[in-house]
Amino acid sequence: MSVESQVVPALGELCRRGIVQAPMAGGVSCPELAAAVCDAGGLGFLAAGYRTAEGMYEEIEQLRALTREPFGVNLFMPQPAADPAAVDRYRRQLAGESSLYGTPIAEGDAHGTDDAYEAKLALLVDDPVPVVSFAFGCPSRDELDALANAGTFTVVTVTTPEEAQAAEWAGADALCVQGIEAGGHRSTHQDDPQSDSSAGLGLLSLVTQVRETVQLPLIAAGGLMRGAQIAAVRAAGADAAQLGTAFLACPESGAHAMHKKALKNPLFATTELTRAFSGRPARGLVNRFVREHGPYAPSGYPEVHHLTAGLRRAAARAGDAQGMALWAGQGHRLARDLPAGRLVQVLAAEADSAWADTASRRTRT
Amino acid sequence: MSVESQVVPALGELCRRGIVQAPMAGGVSCPELAAAVCDAGGLGFLAAGYRTAEGMYEEIEQLRALTREPFGVNLFMPQPAADPAAVDRYRRQLAGESSLYGTPIAEGDAHGTDDAYEAKLALLVDDPVPVVSFAFGCPSRDELDALANAGTFTVVTVTTPEEAQAAEWAGADALCVQGIEAGGHRSTHQDDPQSDSSAGLGLLSLVTQVRETVQLPLIAAGGLMRGAQIAAVRAAGADAAQLGTAFLACPESGAHAMHKKALKNPLFATTELTRAFSGRPARGLVNRFVREHGPYAPSGYPEVHHLTAGLRRAAARAGDAQGMALWAGQGHRLARDLPAGRLVQVLAAEADSAWADTASRRTRT
Repeated sequence: MSVESQVVPALGELCRRGIVQAPMAGGVSCPELAAAVCDAGGLGFLAAGYRTAEGMYEEIEQLRALTREPFGVNLFMPQPAADPAAVDRYRRQLAGESSLYGTPIAEGDAHGTDDAYEAKLALLVDDPVPVVSFAFGCPSRDELDALANAGTFTVVTVTTPEEAQAAEWAGADALCVQGIEAGGHRSTHQDDPQSDSSAGLGLLSLVTQVRETVQLPLIAAGGLMRGAQIAAVRAAGADAAQLGTAFLACPESGAHAMHKKALKNPLFATTELTRAFSGRPARGLVNRFVREHGPYAPSGYPEVHHLTAGLRRAAARAGDAQGMALWAGQGHRLARDLPAGRLVQVLAAEADSAWADTASRRTRT
Repeated sequence: MSVESQVVPALGELCRRGIVQAPMAGGVSCPELAAAVCDAGGLGFLAAGYRTAEGMYEEIEQLRALTREPFGVNLFMPQPAADPAAVDRYRRQLAGESSLYGTPIAEGDAHGTDDAYEAKLALLVDDPVPVVSFAFGCPSRDELDALANAGTFTVVTVTTPEEAQAAEWAGADALCVQGIEAGGHRSTHQDDPQSDSSAGLGLLSLVTQVRETVQLPLIAAGGLMRGAQIAAVRAAGADAAQLGTAFLACPESGAHAMHKKALKNPLFATTELTRAFSGRPARGLVNRFVREHGPYAPSGYPEVHHLTAGLRRAAARAGDAQGMALWAGQGHRLARDLPAGRLVQVLAAEADSAWADTASRRTRT
């Protein structure tokens, strides 16, 4: 090879405080949010999902202008095509929503189903960023090698020990270990409609099982909102913690104001995994749309995502949170609307103090 | 009052090592298992569920003869009567199982639905034990007071912050905080068939939310198999950890040999919550019975439990694990068949070493 390989830094260098801001697609993880996290010693992330390759690149350039600290970009892996009949059936089942919000339901055919994965990857190899993480699957060894040669640290998201093993074999530098508590999309490598949602592993069970399966550094994700929980996942063997919903509530996040407000609204007391909005299981606050369409929504990502995109926008315009995708993890009630940099500091201080408290309780025992 | 109230000891005195052996009904948590745990400095438990009041008392006497250490007894709270039509429909749906195992399906009417709760409680007030814990609901303030006056430490099992609040108001001394990862029955105070199983909180999310809701000592339960996980839940704010599946595998446990063996059998790779065996959601290894009957099994505890009891016994006699209730938490693959006392020592040592490891990693950061 004529191109000299770059040295990939260690996770601890990329993320001094062991706190990662989760990539949240759809405009939530905007450059302003990521920059604030990075400047406070956390690892901020951009979410390339749903964007064009050019749109992704534009955000990277914006973030580079805002911070000199390391940051990450998250990619969605291409998914198998959905069953067109199942998607069509769901389109008809959404007819009432179309009338309710006075919006036609988008034709899915206009959109690709690969999220411009290859174009994005080519851009990231060409003009490397410090960290690239992957959702919905595991890249090939060649793809991971190309990023490693460019000096990029790669993270593959996993939800089972088997997926962790596959990612280690493929050559990932670290794993993001996503428990069932996590808000937004489950990052299972395949969407299995036969599998009961109660089969998904809770974060603490998952971290331990993955820790005993692979040697890689682990970033624990799912429901984490407090520093004491960061201390907990580190005690269980994780090297860092990734928080989404906690940062969604920050003023810098691009989440819709109604979405932020809903996190602590007692009207939305629980979360569920649902395929209603995107065709892939994702955890959100239970609202009317989830209750009505969740029970029969088909597996069909991203076709179903495109199908409901207009409805969700119309619901937001109408000020109706009952028709929006209110992604949230199981800890949503503990959300704080602190500025993101301040939140990183508070979380780090809480983790330290949880440590000191438990040490003193251990001494007393 | 003429009877002098006894002083209720603190959790730390009852459970020196912060390790509780979960009550597992159906003969698993036998006096031999509980005694071995108690003698090693853990808190052993008997499970009064499914037993007569006299049967419970007999086991207490056996345990008292085996150990002088504190121990606990777990009671099932009485449940609302099931819809007879739903139970009858399920009985008909089980006809194939009846032919398969050559066993008639029991008539549910012969059994009470209150698990002899009042008789058991009266016995425990009359001849007190150190600890009484409750599943499936929250006792009245009078019931908890009667036990407290007898010097008994009371623990109410909870699965949500709301249940935790109710238990604190009722006067419990501590809470067992049960995450979605736990094997066996979910201890929700009500079985809500409308609620999606993905709404159940993972242990680490739950511990934090309950910790911020109540002042009581917390015993964390759900998928815990290693000492590092015990260190983790303590960092998150729990005072002790309760382990079921970890102790189910011990030679002293009364679990069926096929049940123990199934925990690590790759044939049973995942667990699910199912009403198939008992009519109340319980987590077990996914086998043929769960796959076939789980999707339509009604809410109806303990009627459905009695309905399937003969089938489960016949499956065990036939050596067919595919028809048995293989209760297991999400950590089942990590089961070790160590003697119970040795397991308590190993868990405590692992927790200490997780502590030391994380402290050294923190210093390096």
